[in-house]
Amino acid sequence: MTADLEDTQIAILVAGLIGACWAALFVHHGATVRVWDPQRTALDKLAERMTRPLAQLKELEPESASQGKVVYHDMVEGAVEGAVLIQENGPENLDLKHALYTRVEPMMAPDAILASSTSALTWSELASGFSDPDRLITAHPFNPPHLVPLVETFGHDADRLDRAEAIYRAAGRVPVRMNKDATGHIANRLSSALWREAVHMVAEGIADVAAIDAALVNGPGLRWSVIGAHMAYHLGGGEGGMAGYLSHLGPSQERRWASLGVPSLTQDVCTALVDGVAAESAGRDIATLEQQRDTALIALLKARL
Amino acid sequence: MTADLEDTQIAILVAGLIGACWAALFVHHGATVRVWDPQRTALDKLAERMTRPLAQLKELEPESASQGKVVYHDMVEGAVEGAVLIQENGPENLDLKHALYTRVEPMMAPDAILASSTSALTWSELASGFSDPDRLITAHPFNPPHLVPLVETFGHDADRLDRAEAIYRAAGRVPVRMNKDATGHIANRLSSALWREAVHMVAEGIADVAAIDAALVNGPGLRWSVIGAHMAYHLGGGEGGMAGYLSHLGPSQERRWASLGVPSLTQDVCTALVDGVAAESAGRDIATLEQQRDTALIALLKARL
Repeated sequence: MTADLEDTQIAILVAGLIGACWAALFVHHGATVRVWDPQRTALDKLAERMTRPLAQLKELEPESASQGKVVYHDMVEGAVEGAVLIQENGPENLDLKHALYTRVEPMMAPDAILASSTSALTWSELASGFSDPDRLITAHPFNPPHLVPLVETFGHDADRLDRAEAIYRAAGRVPVRMNKDATGHIANRLSSALWREAVHMVAEGIADVAAIDAALVNGPGLRWSVIGAHMAYHLGGGEGGMAGYLSHLGPSQERRWASLGVPSLTQDVCTALVDGVAAESAGRDIATLEQQRDTALIALLKARL
Repeated sequence: MTADLEDTQIAILVAGLIGACWAALFVHHGATVRVWDPQRTALDKLAERMTRPLAQLKELEPESASQGKVVYHDMVEGAVEGAVLIQENGPENLDLKHALYTRVEPMMAPDAILASSTSALTWSELASGFSDPDRLITAHPFNPPHLVPLVETFGHDADRLDRAEAIYRAAGRVPVRMNKDATGHIANRLSSALWREAVHMVAEGIADVAAIDAALVNGPGLRWSVIGAHMAYHLGGGEGGMAGYLSHLGPSQERRWASLGVPSLTQDVCTALVDGVAAESAGRDIATLEQQRDTALIALLKARL
C-alpha cells in the first residue's frame, strides 16, 4: 500500500490507547498527525504507546512504513487548525465531549469532519454539542483499531461521510455505514447478543468458559471471519438459500430464539466467569494474551491480503 | 500430519453432504471408511461428493492426502461390524434415528462408539433409542465439517468420549466437550443469539444485510477467529481483566442486554433478509459463494497451522 494520506492533516484529540492506535495507523499511511491531549503525561507517553502498533503495522504492510509524522500540540486549537479529519477519543462522558466540541468547532475548517470514536454514546446525543451537527460523524473502531479493519460510521452529511470513509480506506480500514443511529452501533450489539448466550451457558453449567471460547474460535468465529451471519444462513438453506431457510426453518428459528437465555450477572455467575477466564488464561497475563491475540490477527490479516 | 488413523475402521451411516465430508476427512487421514446409506443413489454419488472435500484437504494438508480407503456397504450391519467409531448423519427425525439405532446396536463391538452428527436433537432424546445409552455420544460438526475444526461432543461415558475425541483430533478436528446436554449444543446457540440481533437490526432499519455482514467479518468475527467472547471481555477490562470489566460495566451490560431486539420473522422482515442477501451476493450463486467461502477458510486455516 502506498502512502495515500501523504498530504492529509489529521488531528487526534485525546491520546490514550485508542488515540495512540489511530495515530500509529494514520502516520503509517503517510499522514501528518496533529495530537492533543488535556494531560501532558499522555503526550509524553505517546511515542511509547505508538511503538508496538507501528511495529505491528510495519510487519503487516512493510511497504508503507512510517512515512508520515506526528506533531504534538499543547493547545487543542492548534491541533485542529488545518486538519481535514479530527478523530476524537475522549472519555465516554457526554458533558466532557460537549465541552470539547464547543471549544473545537470554531477552529474547524468549514468542510472539516469531527469523527468521534465513541463506543457507548450515539451520534444524536453527541450532535447536540454542535452548532452545525453536520460537522459530526461517529466513527467507531474495533479493538485493536490498527489491526481490526472495521470502522462503523454514522452521520447526517453524506459528503463528510464519503470523505471520512475515503481516509479510513486509505488507511487500510473497512468503513461500514449505518442507516440509523443506534447505541452500540452494529458490532457491539452483535458482541453483546452473543456474549449474553455465552454467559447463559456458563450460568447453566452447559459448558466451561474455555470450552465456549474454543467452540467459538474453532467454529462460528472462524466462519464469521470469512462470511457474515446472514450469508451463513443463506448458505445453510442449500439450493433455496435464505428464502428456503426461512420457509423451512423460520418457525423453528423463532422457537430457538425463545429458548435462548437471559442471564443475570449474579455474584455466582461473575465468579464463574472470572475463574473460567483465569483457567483459560493458564497463567498468561493480560499483556501476554494481547500479544498473542495480535500475533494471530496479523497472521490472519496477512492471509486475507 | 501423518496418517494417524491408518489402522482405524470408521463407519459412516447415511452419506449425504455431511456424511461425504466426514468420509473425506477420515479417509484423508488414513482411515478405512465403511459407508452405508439407505438409498443406493447416495452411494452412487458418494465418490463425486467426496471429490471437492478431498481436493480441499489435500490443498490444506498435502502430506496426508488420501492414504485411507472407502468401502461401500449395502447393508448397515456390514458397515458397522468391526468399526470403532460409527458416525451417524441421518435426517433430524427422532423416530428414524431410533429405528436405525435399534438395527445397529446389536452389531456394534462392545466398546464401539455411535457418534451422532445431530444438530437439532439432544443426546437425551437420542439415548432412549439404545439399550446401553453409554454407546451413544453426540458429535456435532460445524459446516463445512472437513474445514471448520469444531466438533461439539456430549455423552455419559467418559472413556468413549476420550476415544472418540482422540480420533477427531487425529483427523485435525478440535473437539469441545459439553458438561450438560443442550439443544443447539454451544455453537448453534451462539449463532442463533447473534443472528437474532442481526435480524433485529435489519428489521429496525439500523443497517443493511450486507453492512451487518461486513461489520461482523471485519470486526468481531475476525477477532472471534482468534480469541473467544469471554476472553475478549477479559482483555476489554484492561489491567483488571474480567473482574474489572464486571465490576465497572456489569450493571450497564445488563442494560445493554435488555436493549437488544426480539425480532419476528414477519413477511416484511423475511423479504428484507432475502433481498438483502441477494444484494450482498451480487449475482454469485450458492455454489460460487460456497467455493469462495472455502477458499478463504483454507487460506485462514493455513495461516493458523
